[in-house]
Amino acid sequence: MIETDSITMADIEPARPHAAAQAAIQEWHRIVAALDWDRVPDLLADCIVYRNPATIDSHHGKATMVAIMRTVFGVMQDFKYHRHFARGTGYVLEFSARVGDAGVFGVDLVEFDEHGKIIDFMVMMRPASAVLALAAEAGKRMGATS
Amino acid sequence: MIETDSITMADIEPARPHAAAQAAIQEWHRIVAALDWDRVPDLLADCIVYRNPATIDSHHGKATMVAIMRTVFGVMQDFKYHRHFARGTGYVLEFSARVGDAGVFGVDLVEFDEHGKIIDFMVMMRPASAVLALAAEAGKRMGATS
Repeated sequence: MIETDSITMADIEPARPHAAAQAAIQEWHRIVAALDWDRVPDLLADCIVYRNPATIDSHHGKATMVAIMRTVFGVMQDFKYHRHFARGTGYVLEFSARVGDAGVFGVDLVEFDEHGKIIDFMVMMRPASAVLALAAEAGKRMGATS
Repeated sequence: MIETDSITMADIEPARPHAAAQAAIQEWHRIVAALDWDRVPDLLADCIVYRNPATIDSHHGKATMVAIMRTVFGVMQDFKYHRHFARGTGYVLEFSARVGDAGVFGVDLVEFDEHGKIIDFMVMMRPASAVLALAAEAGKRMGATS
């Protein structure tokens, strides 16, 4: 037997995201489409935690998250969002992109507080080879500017 | 400017999963909790596509998916599901597990047809080192039995 968290009807039939989360995810899409990273801090809680796809590290604070967004969206090309999945306090946004010659597929898991501020932003991507290539290039660029 | 699919209100406020998908995801949880892989084929469409976290390959057919499930759930320990996200025709199930000494975090993106049969099952995991360790061990075990 595998131990699991108790699965409830709230898991099977999740609530729709609250109004502040809906407004915030629309603003997130505007920011990404316009590469308008200066507006990202308005969407983040002070305690924002960013979790990258390559390592187990977590990254804390608004400035760190903005610096990471600027860098990774500079490395990824042909970025597009696709399916959206939701729960009462968050979204999963599926995306595709290109890193060099490699196609990548990923998800953003975005969790909001009650004010519509992002408290947790986790990224997962496949395939592993492209994740490592992205992390290596992003690390090089962030190291060069820090 | 980044090109994105048009974001609609159906993305921002997704429909609840249809009844057949709800029933199927509850059965999926029962199967995983009981490691009852013999019942997985009942949940799958003949055209099921499985997409693994390590490579860009896709794997086709019920027998392949069942063989992969048996193997990867033999490699992963302490597997637990956490947050659920949903849309009209699918779910994202967040999980944690252990591969050797390494903690891993992942998502299953599960898409259903109108009959509640799974047509697409994509897995993404982090960190990349654990994804590669899991893929190597699973490949060894599947090679040994094929």
